Amino acid sequence: MSDTLEKLAAVIEARKDADPGSSYVAGLFDKGMESILKKVGEESTETIMAALGPDDAQLVHETADLWFHTLVMLAARGLGPDAVLAELERRFGMSGIEEKAARKK
Amino acid sequence: MSDTLEKLAAVIEARKDADPGSSYVAGLFDKGMESILKKVGEESTETIMAALGPDDAQLVHETADLWFHTLVMLAARGLGPDAVLAELERRFGMSGIEEKAARKK
Amino acid sequence: MSDTLEKLAAVIEARKDADPGSSYVAGLFDKGMESILKKVGEESTETIMAALGPDDAQLVHETADLWFHTLVMLAARGLGPDAVLAELERRFGMSGIEEKAARKK
Amino acid sequence: MSDTLEKLAAVIEARKDADPGSSYVAGLFDKGMESILKKVGEESTETIMAALGPDDAQLVHETADLWFHTLVMLAARGLGPDAVLAELERRFGMSGIEEKAARKK
Repeated sequence: MSDTLEKLAAVIEARKDADPGSSYVAGLFDKGMESILKKVGEESTETIMAALGPDDAQLVHETADLWFHTLVMLAARGLGPDAVLAELERRFGMSGIEEKAARKK
Repeated sequence: MSDTLEKLAAVIEARKDADPGSSYVAGLFDKGMESILKKVGEESTETIMAALGPDDAQLVHETADLWFHTLVMLAARGLGPDAVLAELERRFGMSGIEEKAARKK
Repeated sequence: MSDTLEKLAAVIEARKDADPGSSYVAGLFDKGMESILKKVGEESTETIMAALGPDDAQLVHETADLWFHTLVMLAARGLGPDAVLAELERRFGMSGIEEKAARKK
Repeated sequence: MSDTLEKLAAVIEARKDADPGSSYVAGLFDKGMESILKKVGEESTETIMAALGPDDAQLVHETADLWFHTLVMLAARGLGPDAVLAELERRFGMSGIEEKAARKK
C-alpha cells in the first residue's frame, strides 16, 4: 500500500486531458482550480465534523476524500504527492518536528 | 519515499504519551481533539490560499502541514494512514473513481 | 437597513416547520445541522477565495451567503442574530476589542 | 441593537490607520488580507465545532468572532456591512430566497 498516493496521482494525471464528461476528475480539471478548492474546503469541513462524531469509518472516508482532492489540486498545479512527501520526510528526518521538540527540551 | 506517511505516523504515535512540553505533537495530543481540528481547519484555509497564489513551494509546504495534522487527528482516534490509503486503494482499484467514470460513460 | 438581520431571521424562523420541499431553507432544516454546517463551511471557503479575487460584488455575494447560513445555523439551535449582536455590542462597547487595545497600550 | 454592525464597522474603520501595536484590529490590517482571511477560516471552523457542541454561549461567541472578522475583511476592501445587508435585503425582499421557494412550489 506504500505507493498508493503515487499510483493515485498517476490515475489523476491521466484524467487531466480527458473529456470533462468522461470522469469526475476530468470534470474537476475542466472546471478549474476554484472548483477544486471548493471541494478541498468542503472535504476539510466534513473531515472535521466526522472527527467530532463517533464513526471511524466515516472519518476514514472523509479523510480519503480530503487527501484525494488535495492530490487533484496538486496535479492542477503540475505537482505530485512526492513533493509533499519529500517535504514531510525533510521535516521529520530532522528539521521541523524533531527540531521543534529538540528546541523545546 | 513510499512509506513516508507510515514512518511519520510512527513518529506521531511515539509522541502520544510524551510530556506535553516535550514536542509540538505531544502538546497537541495533550490539548485534545478540538485543538487538533482547529489546526486542520487552519491548514486547510492556508492550503487553499496558497493554491490561489503563485508559489509552488508555499503550496507544498501548506499541503504538508495539512496532511501532517490529519495524521495527528487520525492518531488521536487510534487510526493510521494505512486505513485512509486502503480506502483510496479500494476506490481507485475500481470502485469510487473508476466506477463514477464508468457510470458517466 | 438596520434591522435586516432580524427580519431575515423571522423569515428563516417561519420556514422551520414548512414542507421541506417548499423552500431552500425548509429543506436545510429538514436535512439537519450537519447539512447546514457543510454550507457554512462551503460559504466560508468561497468568501475567502472571493476576498483574494478582484471582484467586490462577488465578495459581497459570498459574505451574504455566509451570514445567511450562519443565521440558519443559529435558528436551528433556537438562537437569533440578537444574541450575536448583543455579544458584539458588549465587546466593542468596552470589553473585548477596546479592552484588548487598552491592554496593549 | 439594530445598528450594531454599522457601529462596529465604524470602530473597525477608525483602526485602519492606527499604529499596528495600538489595537488587535490595527494589527490585523497591518498584517494584511491573508492574515485576516486566516482568522475568518479559523473562526469558521470554531463556529462549526461549537454548533456540534452543546453550549449555546460558545456558539454565540464563535459566531460573533466570525462576523467580526468578516467585517474586518470587508473593511480591508473598503466595503461595509451595508453592502452585505443590502444584498440580503434584495434577496429576501423577493429574489433569492423567496424566489427559490416560489420556483419550487
